[in-house]
Amino acid sequence: MSRFRKRHPKAGAPPGTLMISESDAKPRVTYMAYTAEGSIEEGAVAQVARLRQLRAGAGTLWVDIQGIGDEALLREIGEIFDVHPLALEDVVNVPQRPKVDHYDEHMLIVTRMIRMKSATVLDVEQVSVFVGENYVLTFQERHGDVLDPVRARLRKGTGPIRRLGADYLAYALIDTVVDAYYPVLEAIGDLLEDLEEEIVQHPRQSLLRQIYAARRELLTMRRAVWPMREAIYSIVRSEEEDFSAEARVYLRDTLDHCAQILDATESNRELVTGLMDMYLSTISNRQNEIMKVLTVIASIFVPLTFLAGIYGMNFADMPELHYRWGYPALLTLMAAVAIGMLAYFWKLGWLRREDA
Amino acid sequence: MSRFRKRHPKAGAPPGTLMISESDAKPRVTYMAYTAEGSIEEGAVAQVARLRQLRAGAGTLWVDIQGIGDEALLREIGEIFDVHPLALEDVVNVPQRPKVDHYDEHMLIVTRMIRMKSATVLDVEQVSVFVGENYVLTFQERHGDVLDPVRARLRKGTGPIRRLGADYLAYALIDTVVDAYYPVLEAIGDLLEDLEEEIVQHPRQSLLRQIYAARRELLTMRRAVWPMREAIYSIVRSEEEDFSAEARVYLRDTLDHCAQILDATESNRELVTGLMDMYLSTISNRQNEIMKVLTVIASIFVPLTFLAGIYGMNFADMPELHYRWGYPALLTLMAAVAIGMLAYFWKLGWLRREDA
Amino acid sequence: MSRFRKRHPKAGAPPGTLMISESDAKPRVTYMAYTAEGSIEEGAVAQVARLRQLRAGAGTLWVDIQGIGDEALLREIGEIFDVHPLALEDVVNVPQRPKVDHYDEHMLIVTRMIRMKSATVLDVEQVSVFVGENYVLTFQERHGDVLDPVRARLRKGTGPIRRLGADYLAYALIDTVVDAYYPVLEAIGDLLEDLEEEIVQHPRQSLLRQIYAARRELLTMRRAVWPMREAIYSIVRSEEEDFSAEARVYLRDTLDHCAQILDATESNRELVTGLMDMYLSTISNRQNEIMKVLTVIASIFVPLTFLAGIYGMNFADMPELHYRWGYPALLTLMAAVAIGMLAYFWKLGWLRREDA
Amino acid sequence: MSRFRKRHPKAGAPPGTLMISESDAKPRVTYMAYTAEGSIEEGAVAQVARLRQLRAGAGTLWVDIQGIGDEALLREIGEIFDVHPLALEDVVNVPQRPKVDHYDEHMLIVTRMIRMKSATVLDVEQVSVFVGENYVLTFQERHGDVLDPVRARLRKGTGPIRRLGADYLAYALIDTVVDAYYPVLEAIGDLLEDLEEEIVQHPRQSLLRQIYAARRELLTMRRAVWPMREAIYSIVRSEEEDFSAEARVYLRDTLDHCAQILDATESNRELVTGLMDMYLSTISNRQNEIMKVLTVIASIFVPLTFLAGIYGMNFADMPELHYRWGYPALLTLMAAVAIGMLAYFWKLGWLRREDA
Amino acid sequence: MSRFRKRHPKAGAPPGTLMISESDAKPRVTYMAYTAEGSIEEGAVAQVARLRQLRAGAGTLWVDIQGIGDEALLREIGEIFDVHPLALEDVVNVPQRPKVDHYDEHMLIVTRMIRMKSATVLDVEQVSVFVGENYVLTFQERHGDVLDPVRARLRKGTGPIRRLGADYLAYALIDTVVDAYYPVLEAIGDLLEDLEEEIVQHPRQSLLRQIYAARRELLTMRRAVWPMREAIYSIVRSEEEDFSAEARVYLRDTLDHCAQILDATESNRELVTGLMDMYLSTISNRQNEIMKVLTVIASIFVPLTFLAGIYGMNFADMPELHYRWGYPALLTLMAAVAIGMLAYFWKLGWLRREDA
Repeated sequence: MSRFRKRHPKAGAPPGTLMISESDAKPRVTYMAYTAEGSIEEGAVAQVARLRQLRAGAGTLWVDIQGIGDEALLREIGEIFDVHPLALEDVVNVPQRPKVDHYDEHMLIVTRMIRMKSATVLDVEQVSVFVGENYVLTFQERHGDVLDPVRARLRKGTGPIRRLGADYLAYALIDTVVDAYYPVLEAIGDLLEDLEEEIVQHPRQSLLRQIYAARRELLTMRRAVWPMREAIYSIVRSEEEDFSAEARVYLRDTLDHCAQILDATESNRELVTGLMDMYLSTISNRQNEIMKVLTVIASIFVPLTFLAGIYGMNFADMPELHYRWGYPALLTLMAAVAIGMLAYFWKLGWLRREDA
Repeated sequence: MSRFRKRHPKAGAPPGTLMISESDAKPRVTYMAYTAEGSIEEGAVAQVARLRQLRAGAGTLWVDIQGIGDEALLREIGEIFDVHPLALEDVVNVPQRPKVDHYDEHMLIVTRMIRMKSATVLDVEQVSVFVGENYVLTFQERHGDVLDPVRARLRKGTGPIRRLGADYLAYALIDTVVDAYYPVLEAIGDLLEDLEEEIVQHPRQSLLRQIYAARRELLTMRRAVWPMREAIYSIVRSEEEDFSAEARVYLRDTLDHCAQILDATESNRELVTGLMDMYLSTISNRQNEIMKVLTVIASIFVPLTFLAGIYGMNFADMPELHYRWGYPALLTLMAAVAIGMLAYFWKLGWLRREDA
Repeated sequence: MSRFRKRHPKAGAPPGTLMISESDAKPRVTYMAYTAEGSIEEGAVAQVARLRQLRAGAGTLWVDIQGIGDEALLREIGEIFDVHPLALEDVVNVPQRPKVDHYDEHMLIVTRMIRMKSATVLDVEQVSVFVGENYVLTFQERHGDVLDPVRARLRKGTGPIRRLGADYLAYALIDTVVDAYYPVLEAIGDLLEDLEEEIVQHPRQSLLRQIYAARRELLTMRRAVWPMREAIYSIVRSEEEDFSAEARVYLRDTLDHCAQILDATESNRELVTGLMDMYLSTISNRQNEIMKVLTVIASIFVPLTFLAGIYGMNFADMPELHYRWGYPALLTLMAAVAIGMLAYFWKLGWLRREDA
Repeated sequence: MSRFRKRHPKAGAPPGTLMISESDAKPRVTYMAYTAEGSIEEGAVAQVARLRQLRAGAGTLWVDIQGIGDEALLREIGEIFDVHPLALEDVVNVPQRPKVDHYDEHMLIVTRMIRMKSATVLDVEQVSVFVGENYVLTFQERHGDVLDPVRARLRKGTGPIRRLGADYLAYALIDTVVDAYYPVLEAIGDLLEDLEEEIVQHPRQSLLRQIYAARRELLTMRRAVWPMREAIYSIVRSEEEDFSAEARVYLRDTLDHCAQILDATESNRELVTGLMDMYLSTISNRQNEIMKVLTVIASIFVPLTFLAGIYGMNFADMPELHYRWGYPALLTLMAAVAIGMLAYFWKLGWLRREDA
Repeated sequence: MSRFRKRHPKAGAPPGTLMISESDAKPRVTYMAYTAEGSIEEGAVAQVARLRQLRAGAGTLWVDIQGIGDEALLREIGEIFDVHPLALEDVVNVPQRPKVDHYDEHMLIVTRMIRMKSATVLDVEQVSVFVGENYVLTFQERHGDVLDPVRARLRKGTGPIRRLGADYLAYALIDTVVDAYYPVLEAIGDLLEDLEEEIVQHPRQSLLRQIYAARRELLTMRRAVWPMREAIYSIVRSEEEDFSAEARVYLRDTLDHCAQILDATESNRELVTGLMDMYLSTISNRQNEIMKVLTVIASIFVPLTFLAGIYGMNFADMPELHYRWGYPALLTLMAAVAIGMLAYFWKLGWLRREDA
């Protein structure tokens, strides 16, 4: 998500315009229907009309739509669950900022799922959650998600998940999305620590790009988590009755996680700045070392070469050239100059490695 | 809009003074009048007095004035629609900060339209929107705008646009102005990505100015969007009845867009800072490379030249000069010194390119 | 106003102590008295006692005191208009932070007038405005001000200025002070743009000081405008009846100007930071260019000199010296080495100007 | 705590999942039970069931659990004291953000204990405090803590500690945790001062890492203290009756300490930034010194060597070579050139140490 | 106050523990008792018991305790004036954050007195002010203070100081402490201006430390003034009756001073950052100058030396050596090369001083 790319209708298009492209994944619709008493039923939905029946059933219904590449189908689902056109637009024209919107029939919670695609690339996907009286509707951009553990818990039926209805299910989904930030944050933390080590051991130009990439990832994290926290906070503190008191206790826990992730993200952002400084200084230090070698060699040999040049002159009358000990004496003088300069440089600390 | 230039009256001029210059475009006045029942009528307004009739008509009226270069005409329009002198001043003395002002007869919403003029120049223009009981008045600085899609929707008549009256029309106009920020933001995002690539591949002085220009554009964006969001927020949360509940649901959507654009702008601003660091470091790295070449060459040849200098001296008694193998031995020694130093530098990593 | 200098009494002096120095300008007192019906009278006030009469007159009275170098006179005026000792202290012990204080008899609005003294020096002066039932009292530090246009409007009598009384007059004065910030801001903006051009064309040490001066001026602006906005906001939103509803509508306009000036100031502050980076980088780039020339020349001639040194040695047995083509062959070799290195450096891009 | 590591259940695990690893310390459970009348009893708890008896006793009970490596035992304790599963999760899945949660039976205060492990490593441990009607339950991650002084005060029985019950005990524990930040802050302050001295005296690469480590420690501090202050503030201002007015007066004191520690942490963070600048500049200054030596030596000997080279040429007709005073005259010229250059460099200030 | 040092009891010590060291100054207790009617009495207090009498007297009593090195005496005074143990702890365990605490009998205002010890060292001392019904109690860390002018005003009896009672006296003391910040701020401002001049004229390493010291002083200022303003604000806005309306008008003036000092402190902090940039750039510029000299000299003589080397070779067959004009021709060529290069460098601007 390095480049900011939003599916936005051409400016001035009527509200509710859905921006669907050829390459969007075709929707796969699945459902799980369960009651507090323990019955559970799940399956794929071949005909969307079937959803109307399911909605009318007892218990709680979760319909999960993965992929948004079929406008007619999405509009039909929207109609069955009385989704406001603007809400449907938010589902399709991704990415939306995480947020909570209240409509008459249901609330829409827009969340952002983040996974590591590779060490320096994040995979960001919007998960839109509609929470109605007795149903939850989730729309995802692509196939595949991090929600399998919730499905497993529903099947297993332990804990309060079947008993507590649609709001608790929504909590469980949001909580799972948020918990998936931890491994991402840890991966970034590991990257920073590796970068620190690399900068000290083998500073090189390519690290610069990695630092920059880490900075960008952290910005992506923050841009996801910050509004997410606001959104969850607004549910927890809301005076509307969408979420039961019991579900709110759980959601408060998710809120704590958001705050913690945000804290860690901010800390990491400061560390990235520190790494940049460290990189620049290390590079500068290496240049310093190179400079010192040149200085020492040149400073020693330049005067010696001058001395040799003197006695390479062809003046007719240079008495030293004919002294018996002239040559050895000059060699001795040269050695003395060289040793003297080395000693001086040693004293100045130029011959020791700075960080030895 | 690099230089901050505001048409402001000379300090101390009476409030309501209009600062119109010779070069301002002459106003072109057009109107669209439509009813919920479906009738629609549009045209250019040659005589301003005609507007008085139009205002008295049934349905909703949109009068669009492009160009502000005729004070008498503007004042006449102002009089017909009971525009407060201060409001008229805000229309003409651009740029005003985006804002919402409530007057007895109508509200004034000052918005800022931003388009890309070229890759590094933004075209910024103020669009002032008056929303009355059953009319909307828009004033634009220059001819040409991004509002054609709204005109098309009005003509076509689909969607709620004809039915919902003046407040919905105002929403549609504001929304169109805000949506036009997305392509600008994407262009800046692309620019940043290209800059990143260029910095790594061909760092050069001229990139510096481009980075600076990007920074300035983002400042311009922020200065437009931040107060825009505040203004829209104040309408959404307002207790006055200017906007119907239905229009507010739509405006809330525009508010989300503002927040998202602001988020992206802020992120980009941080990335620009990162690019600057990256540029500086890359330049410094290149200097490093140049330094290394000089160091290697000088460090190797300076001692060798000294050796040659020794045996170029004219001392009468230099026995080595007469040894049979003196010359080849010295050449061998020189080769050994050169190879030894190269090996040492290789070990220090100076002969490898740092970012290879 | 580079150095922070406040006239403050010695710590522990009783409140109300006036710090007047020898060099303060002697007060010049003038007045304008006018009624909504159209009569207007103005003049200099030779005897302060005359003010008591004027205050008792009908209509609105504006007394303007320029210069604060006469304690007795100031205290006498203070007594005539029931000025609280702390308020009088605020008038004299400049600079005060812009603010609004409510007293029983009147309110005190402390404003800051800013003009360009030269391209890099701001002239900052405090204008204290007392607003009573039917009078306005202004105290200025020095002779000369930006308020002449208000005087002209009063004399001319057009617009609501004579009709609306003391609060509107106070608004007109404050608005004039605030409007005088625009040319300052534009001058700074021009300076920044010129600096950008100069940095790219002729980077030099003296620009550094100009950047620093611009930074300081912007700080001065912000320190004036920020509390100014707060103060005006507090009047606009105040529940007290000091300002009539009509005057508040106008003052809201001044508030918008403050917000806009603050926005521009903040943007300029960011641009100054960017200029600093650009300057540093440009300087570093020039150093780079110089380095490259040295590197190219030294790297080419050092090996060549070594070769010449070899054949300048005096070994008895150096066969090459006696080869027929020895000398031309060596010259050819030297030329080949030089050309080879130039070609290599060309390939590395060192012979092209980086920003050509 | 350089790397951010949280025990978090796999994303999607049911709430209340406890993440206990093999390496976690086995819990040691101890208790102290005392009454306002002066009786006190303490001991280790071998069988958890004993806690049920203790809870039923009169007076105040403090149960301290050090180590969290036994899920069954923790759950049993949780059951005895009616701990909510989410609260138990917060106890085990460390680190949690410091916070206060209100449950029906008790409140949970999550605090963070910080100690110096070594000069550059902080030891961070979560202390979770449950405050019930007449009991306090503390869970710690590992064996060993900073709470011994509280135990000593309980045994000694002076002061209000036995009289004021569970809320005062909780205060005493939190206060002790917070007071333990002072030595850490002082250690960091000492480190910064030593770093400043070292940077000026012996700038070297390894200091860079120490600066970075200090920055990280300060981030750790801030991340602990900031939410801690919020949490304590929420108790002090809370309208619930968990803490008596008397205990709140004491807690307000702890709140002041938090604010002070936060102030000092922020100041130190700014100083770290300053140290970084100082380090970079010092390093750059040293490089400057080295450069100057090279410049002086090379600039003096390079022209001299050229002069020697001139008279080393073998032209047939070089009259100077045969002048009687040619050689001494040249030597004199060389000395003059050298002295002249030295004088020039002295004048430029290059021969003085810059910071002498 | 460079190192953060707080007298804090060992973590876990009971609240109210006083940390008094051997080196603390022994308390000197003096009092002033006066009535609105004009009687005034002052003296040293030899026996603390005398204070009980004084407290019972009519009028207002100010007891000033300088030095905190006697626990028994402090506790006795505390008892006489019903000082809460926590309040006494705040008096002794300095530095506390400036704050206001309300107790039953009196309020405690903790202030921070700052004076210049030397150009780069601030002398920071806590002044704790207890304000009761008809008495003020001040505790200072050491002997000597800035409060003498208040004593003089009390003795002189002019102004409202004797008439307005304990709250006005407290205001006068706080105001004096705050006013003493102005000279400190001016000293820092002067230091910054001198530093700017020095940086431009004689940049040197030692300035770096002075910049850092200025940064630290400004941090100290901010840390004192920020909470001070909060504290005073809380009194001014408080709904409790500790301060009379009349005293509050005066205190509002002190609040303005705090805001102004904070403004100036923040501005100075930004200027310090600018100075750092300017220093770094100036140093870098000087390095640039040095580099240029080396480059010019080396670039000119290295080719010339090569030419001399050519004709120093001993090839048997070098025809130029035997040309009649060979030697003068070569010398002419050398001069031409040197002049050509000088001209080129002049054109590049390398021979002009950059900031001349």
